[in-house]
Amino acid sequence: MRNSALTSAQRAANGNGWRRYVPALAWVRNYRRDYLAGDLMAGLVVAIMLVPQSMAYALLGGLPPQAGLYASIAPLVVYALLGTSRALAVGPVAIVSLLVASGLSPLAEPGSAAYVQLALTLAFLAGIVQVAMGLARMGFLVNFLSYPVLAGFTSAAALVIGLSQVRTLLGIKIPQTDKFLETLLYTVQGAGRTNWVTLAIGLGSLALLLYFRGGLGKHLARLGLSRPLIVTITRSGPLVVALLGTLVVAALDLDRRAGVQVVGRVPAGLPPLTWPTVDLALWAALLPTALAISLVGYTESISVAKALASKRRQKVDPDQELLALGAADVAAALTGGYPVTGGLSRSSVNFAAGANTGLASLVTAGLMALTVLFFTPAFTYLPNAVLAAIIVAAVTNLFDLETLREAWRYNKADAASWLVTFGVVLAWGIEVGIGAGVLTSLALFLWRTSRPHMAVVGRVGETEHFRNVLRHPVRTCPHVIAVRVDESLYFANTRYLEDQLLAMVADRPEVRHLLLICSAINFIDASALQTLEALHEELRDAGVQLHLAEVKGPVMDRLQAIGFVERLGAQHIFLSTHEAMRALECV
Amino acid sequence: MRNSALTSAQRAANGNGWRRYVPALAWVRNYRRDYLAGDLMAGLVVAIMLVPQSMAYALLGGLPPQAGLYASIAPLVVYALLGTSRALAVGPVAIVSLLVASGLSPLAEPGSAAYVQLALTLAFLAGIVQVAMGLARMGFLVNFLSYPVLAGFTSAAALVIGLSQVRTLLGIKIPQTDKFLETLLYTVQGAGRTNWVTLAIGLGSLALLLYFRGGLGKHLARLGLSRPLIVTITRSGPLVVALLGTLVVAALDLDRRAGVQVVGRVPAGLPPLTWPTVDLALWAALLPTALAISLVGYTESISVAKALASKRRQKVDPDQELLALGAADVAAALTGGYPVTGGLSRSSVNFAAGANTGLASLVTAGLMALTVLFFTPAFTYLPNAVLAAIIVAAVTNLFDLETLREAWRYNKADAASWLVTFGVVLAWGIEVGIGAGVLTSLALFLWRTSRPHMAVVGRVGETEHFRNVLRHPVRTCPHVIAVRVDESLYFANTRYLEDQLLAMVADRPEVRHLLLICSAINFIDASALQTLEALHEELRDAGVQLHLAEVKGPVMDRLQAIGFVERLGAQHIFLSTHEAMRALECV
Repeated sequence: MRNSALTSAQRAANGNGWRRYVPALAWVRNYRRDYLAGDLMAGLVVAIMLVPQSMAYALLGGLPPQAGLYASIAPLVVYALLGTSRALAVGPVAIVSLLVASGLSPLAEPGSAAYVQLALTLAFLAGIVQVAMGLARMGFLVNFLSYPVLAGFTSAAALVIGLSQVRTLLGIKIPQTDKFLETLLYTVQGAGRTNWVTLAIGLGSLALLLYFRGGLGKHLARLGLSRPLIVTITRSGPLVVALLGTLVVAALDLDRRAGVQVVGRVPAGLPPLTWPTVDLALWAALLPTALAISLVGYTESISVAKALASKRRQKVDPDQELLALGAADVAAALTGGYPVTGGLSRSSVNFAAGANTGLASLVTAGLMALTVLFFTPAFTYLPNAVLAAIIVAAVTNLFDLETLREAWRYNKADAASWLVTFGVVLAWGIEVGIGAGVLTSLALFLWRTSRPHMAVVGRVGETEHFRNVLRHPVRTCPHVIAVRVDESLYFANTRYLEDQLLAMVADRPEVRHLLLICSAINFIDASALQTLEALHEELRDAGVQLHLAEVKGPVMDRLQAIGFVERLGAQHIFLSTHEAMRALECV
Repeated sequence: MRNSALTSAQRAANGNGWRRYVPALAWVRNYRRDYLAGDLMAGLVVAIMLVPQSMAYALLGGLPPQAGLYASIAPLVVYALLGTSRALAVGPVAIVSLLVASGLSPLAEPGSAAYVQLALTLAFLAGIVQVAMGLARMGFLVNFLSYPVLAGFTSAAALVIGLSQVRTLLGIKIPQTDKFLETLLYTVQGAGRTNWVTLAIGLGSLALLLYFRGGLGKHLARLGLSRPLIVTITRSGPLVVALLGTLVVAALDLDRRAGVQVVGRVPAGLPPLTWPTVDLALWAALLPTALAISLVGYTESISVAKALASKRRQKVDPDQELLALGAADVAAALTGGYPVTGGLSRSSVNFAAGANTGLASLVTAGLMALTVLFFTPAFTYLPNAVLAAIIVAAVTNLFDLETLREAWRYNKADAASWLVTFGVVLAWGIEVGIGAGVLTSLALFLWRTSRPHMAVVGRVGETEHFRNVLRHPVRTCPHVIAVRVDESLYFANTRYLEDQLLAMVADRPEVRHLLLICSAINFIDASALQTLEALHEELRDAGVQLHLAEVKGPVMDRLQAIGFVERLGAQHIFLSTHEAMRALECV
């Protein structure tokens, strides 16, 4: 409710009718001259990263390299117009590419025309799902991907992605499978056929990339270079290794003389107009993957968008973001691309390089268009192993055992969600893994709330404070038992509550009054109300009077409306524990 | 944890080793002479009810009448030994019989020898499931059957059961189906073939039964009869109509002359020794039904057991109850019976008639054994329509629209769970209905906790109280915003929290301090912790300091252990809201 109120306020500020769905109008109308330098610079830096990355991720997704380039043009323009984040850099990303490969490789031969058609149909479906979720205000659904589940998923996906690139680094061919252990087995079996030249190029590229990301920045800073320049140089690592690899292969003729796999001819020209396959049976088969891509892609995107927006006290509208990302996916489907989303590292670079508005994305899109128009011949001798190295370098960041360690120390249930997701992704594949993780989080949450913390309390000295008898030296009296319940009462914990309270009374034959302290009870559902009614009667039959204290306003309103207050007797409901204890002659 | 501690304490009181699993030892050792009259009387009254009811429910379950009688002997003895409730009357009940019919009728012809064998195998499986749940301390699982789901389910089941008896009251044969609407259609189509003599016997019996349950008690009380005698007489309604119906049919030869369906020959003699079919494929097919019977049967049983026990300040051990009911089901499987559970109305009668210990159940079992040994010829001319009338009279109590009305007034989410369960049971069958109801309750609970109530608070006059600015005339100051969150923080609501708080800050450019009041936060999971960390940084980047107040002890312990307190700064965490507001120069 609140969320939608906020959203409409925000949309009203953007105008009425169709205008409220085009947040870009806000920055276009108020564009300031001093935004320009930052937008141009950021657009350039992101394009430098995106040219090699987009091709690498397309290969990871089982697609020809141009699909990645195409997915980096129209979707960026659409997002710049419809998105509410001013720094989000949309395009192909590693995990969505992996989801594409895992969803489509059972249906068609990777790289084939049929596969390309499936990929753009998948982008279309994912886009429709996101637009529908946005219009139905269902953005909250991603909340059920908890942080440990996402972290466990991402870490496992990083391993799967990393392993999937080993074959390319070794220059071997092995059967496609989305099972981690099978792929590992095939890779080890195939390692005997390693193409050593390919491996040298791959490892050299990887070393260079890690240096660009690690030591280079410090060295350049010591040379006294300006920060924007350092960002540009360090982020051009992928472009540099791509150029170097291409030059080495072309100069030494390594593709023919040493069998080094290269990208080959990439067609020149702007993205083609394409149309998704309309076939309900096919859509039904693709829907699970489309859902996974929608949710995972949106989650990655909205997290980074919110983090960046808050740094400048800007707001991101979660439902409009769904619309914008969905439209970007549809744009990818119509221009020969495949599913895209807002990428974590590219968006951070975009922000750091000074992106102020969506113009930065338009600049990137323009540079990508120039690339496909004029520079595709340069990719002919680009070795696949260099692209594999770019992917491996990118996903090393994603593997994150620290989250598990922290979760383990903080809360075992969260650690369990992490481990289940991680294990299931590796054992049964990535979509099953997400599902298993979500179910585990939910089950553990329900398990926890189904056994609420309850404390018998007593009076601290001569104060009006009442604390847990097990933790503090407090005074109680034999004919009254005062119990604080630290959870809302609902169907899953109401029988536990009843059991505990009846057991307490049964264990203390001298008790005549049971005082329930409700300060932490935010809600009482119908099952719990029913239990309270039963408890009241059961206690009365046993000669014990039930009392309530510190009932919250909204809870009290409901108890009153339904007649419970009257049945219990208003004189048995107290504002404070102290007042209740005084009335029961226990202080 | 607490539950098992309690349970072991209780079990220790009962002795060690195998003895702790035989709670009957407690009452056998301490049996008092003054218990005897009550136990004998209660055993007799329950047997009077059980003879006709057990046969009626067996027919409802698609079984020959003797299966109901057999299920009322050995299971009662086993429960008397192993159960922790002293007043629970175990035996065939309407809803479990319906579950049996709905689960087995697709697999075999009702009434056939194969069907009887399936029913006892089902009892065996349900028993094993309950014993396993009891040993694994899984009794808490039934908590997920919320009160509205159970009420909606029971009401729908009452309609299904009632409708299923109409064919017998009309004396017509129609195809078996567990779909309500189909059955309704067949019944209406078949109404033209009504056997009017059968209908007259059925409606006469029904009228008499309703009189026994309603007006008779008052009339007898006016005659000055003692209460135990009144209970015995009013509860003998089923027996009286069975005798009357039998006499009328036998005297007028109505079975042959008017085609009135009768029970026919019931074999005399003690229950046979039987053995469940051991076939894993069959077990897999029966498992869903066995699970539904275990959960629904246990829920019905434990509710009534707890309600009765608390009236005498006795305790019921939920896990031992699972063991006892499971063992009773296994006993039913080994003696030609079918699944049983503790029945609501019979247990209440047992309690009201004075049952003090399990001896009452043993008396009932003994009388049932005498019945199958000597009185089975009496049932030959018992009309099926009388048994149908007994069932219809019993289930009219179960249809409960009042629960829906109350839930609707109290809480729409609970009403929705009721309606979904009710509708799905009628439309798709009873097992699907339970599943749909449970999922609906869970989804609505998660939906509610995913959008916690949040209130901006201000100071009430010159007091130390801070209340919602929307509900009370309070004072705030422009550079501080103090927000109380009325829910534990966990993955499903943490992004909502972040959105709301960031939006509040973005809307108030003059704010420099955000104070989060944590008095209603019982738990912060890893996702929420992550959000708090991000929020802290995002706010800092925007020039706003985060503060916490009224953090609960256990929550604080965790925040401290994980280092959040240190990262936020201990000086930003306050014991009370007032203290915080003073430090922020806002009071």
